[in-house]
Amino acid sequence: MDDVLKKLSLLKDTSRILSTSKARDRNDALKLIADEILASRDYILSENSKDVESARQKGMKESLIDRLVLNYRRIDEMVDACNEVVELKDPIGEVVDSYVREDGLKIYKTRVPLGVLSVIYESRPNVTVETTILALKSGNCILLKGGSDAINSNKAIVDVMKSALRKSNLPESAVELVEQTDRSVVDFLIKQRDYIDLVIPRGGKSLIEYVVQNSKVPVLETGAGVCHIFVDESANVEKSLAIVDNAKTQRPGTCNAVETLLVHEGIAQVFLPKLKELFDERHVEIRGCEQTQEIIQCVPATQEDWSTEYLDYIISVKVVCGLEEAIAHINKYSTKHSEAILTENYTNAMKFIDSIDSSAVYINASTRFTDGGQFGMGAEIGISTQKLHARGPVGLRDLTTTKYIIFGDYNIRR
Amino acid sequence: MDDVLKKLSLLKDTSRILSTSKARDRNDALKLIADEILASRDYILSENSKDVESARQKGMKESLIDRLVLNYRRIDEMVDACNEVVELKDPIGEVVDSYVREDGLKIYKTRVPLGVLSVIYESRPNVTVETTILALKSGNCILLKGGSDAINSNKAIVDVMKSALRKSNLPESAVELVEQTDRSVVDFLIKQRDYIDLVIPRGGKSLIEYVVQNSKVPVLETGAGVCHIFVDESANVEKSLAIVDNAKTQRPGTCNAVETLLVHEGIAQVFLPKLKELFDERHVEIRGCEQTQEIIQCVPATQEDWSTEYLDYIISVKVVCGLEEAIAHINKYSTKHSEAILTENYTNAMKFIDSIDSSAVYINASTRFTDGGQFGMGAEIGISTQKLHARGPVGLRDLTTTKYIIFGDYNIRR
Repeated sequence: MDDVLKKLSLLKDTSRILSTSKARDRNDALKLIADEILASRDYILSENSKDVESARQKGMKESLIDRLVLNYRRIDEMVDACNEVVELKDPIGEVVDSYVREDGLKIYKTRVPLGVLSVIYESRPNVTVETTILALKSGNCILLKGGSDAINSNKAIVDVMKSALRKSNLPESAVELVEQTDRSVVDFLIKQRDYIDLVIPRGGKSLIEYVVQNSKVPVLETGAGVCHIFVDESANVEKSLAIVDNAKTQRPGTCNAVETLLVHEGIAQVFLPKLKELFDERHVEIRGCEQTQEIIQCVPATQEDWSTEYLDYIISVKVVCGLEEAIAHINKYSTKHSEAILTENYTNAMKFIDSIDSSAVYINASTRFTDGGQFGMGAEIGISTQKLHARGPVGLRDLTTTKYIIFGDYNIRR
Repeated sequence: MDDVLKKLSLLKDTSRILSTSKARDRNDALKLIADEILASRDYILSENSKDVESARQKGMKESLIDRLVLNYRRIDEMVDACNEVVELKDPIGEVVDSYVREDGLKIYKTRVPLGVLSVIYESRPNVTVETTILALKSGNCILLKGGSDAINSNKAIVDVMKSALRKSNLPESAVELVEQTDRSVVDFLIKQRDYIDLVIPRGGKSLIEYVVQNSKVPVLETGAGVCHIFVDESANVEKSLAIVDNAKTQRPGTCNAVETLLVHEGIAQVFLPKLKELFDERHVEIRGCEQTQEIIQCVPATQEDWSTEYLDYIISVKVVCGLEEAIAHINKYSTKHSEAILTENYTNAMKFIDSIDSSAVYINASTRFTDGGQFGMGAEIGISTQKLHARGPVGLRDLTTTKYIIFGDYNIRR
């Protein structure tokens, strides 16, 4: 791990330089990265094709290969991402709070970079670019640890980004790639409290859980979404169907897609047959509780279904006797990501948002909105399901910490 | 640990009740606690005297006994603390950010309680009250784990607080005390991710370090302060002496007291003899670097001194050749708590605040101001030296997380 340690030490030193860098220099660096990626796309694609070829030889699943493979369109998306992040409001230096004492001492709470971020992720080369540009924009250095199957792609992309940084006013050592790709390097990284300020695991549940459980470095947990929608007795049936349809089928593989539907017993007889008809059309499998099975034909739900994130055309359905049961079910089984109530009853709506302990709680809207872009914060690094530091979509601001700067006139404490 | 687990389970359930409690009920509960403590002071004092007696028999140091012992004045301070916290602005429900989408979807980022806090602390019964009232004010439940030498005092105080809660609209199970006082219970607590949202170790360096290194639960690290003051060449000598005096001697046992003084070589010949004269008067021991030893008589500083938090009438002094060396020394040895520059040079002042990576950075003021009360946030739970979630004095706001609440009109994502 000597090589990794050397990079960490270099990143830490570089983080002091980045912390005093100017927003213009950071933005210029991002533009140069965009240009360099565009100019080097054939090189990146040829390195990427090595990864894709060996993945095919290994018999990797087609859905995973799809995340690995790059093409002109995906390169263009990387370039666009750089230019979009340039346009985002710079978070650094903002005075987030202030207090001027009676003795004239001026206390300003300001936003500053965290220092060194480390992102541990799967074989998705686009993540290499997306996380780097968010780190640089927010004045942070970044250590990238991608999946082994994307190593050639990642090396090429990092080479290209470093070449862009050499033309910029930022040091090229602001971005480093861990070239070892075995799991032991993860164990090593998550112990480096002296060098890494924040580790962000992006990927499967087991990786995230492993990092959260074992890291000595602070972790940003971007987690799974077992999202719920509760259809209350008073909900508008047609509009509710449209929301459930959107939340399940618009993009089932995302963490903000709905996985469990709770239906008030007073509306179940009307709602469920219509849902069945719609989801048959959409090829969505319904796994229902006993009461659901009495109303529509469906796969019987098991206990396990209530805590499963399908990320697929499957939904579990439970009939509940009312709001209280819905709230209790959600607070028990949800991953505290996104939940919605569909209702015309104002009191129930307000009670639902007060009582549900999740990062985003909706009244009469699809859970699919939980996303940095949809929430107006531009690019995001994930959806945090933890409570500390950042909760919900994680944007640029969440990649910062604060520093009090205090302007005195030789003030002493009495 | 069955007993502790039962309490944790109860606290978790209770946290759902507290999260929807009204500020009025929380404030009323604090007032009732104040009344009950005042009415029960003789009971508390008699239980406390048992602790003090057995501490004396064990031969506990007088300085530790001083922190353990209660009397009418200290009880009054507890009561005052309750009433002061009542007056603080309620943090819960505040909309900290908002975004209304083009499609009318209203997205509000609101402040909500964290849930269950656990405070692990030493034998200081006043901490029992202070942390509980901050937890309740911010809508959190709290599990207290105090030092074994204060167990009778803590039991009495928690009994009294619970008795007050029974008269209030909050459940008495919002506060629980761990009655086991051995270290193994700490190991148990810091693994309870399912029950505890935040653990706050308050106490010695070794306890904090142990919890930070081993906890699976998110930790708020309130840390040691190896605070620095850099006396630049252009500093006003008399005013600078007053600040160094204040920062060292006003209360040497606090984490924001200065421990290392860096003096520009261009002012050292003038400044150090005056410092020597002043600190001889104040009985402050000076431990100087070689250059310091050439100018004044002092104890030679060892390498260890640069990273030592004396919490005593001792100061280490190093002559530096300029701003750059001062910044490098501080970023190397500081615990990232509070540092100050004393200067008339504007450019140096601004460079210092940009370059120093600490929670509070001062120009021409004493480091002793780093304190929730002095910063206008009322009572504090400690000074955070970590970068995530909260940095610097930790007030009520930092005991909260956020929840997005989203008001829709059957909006779906396109």
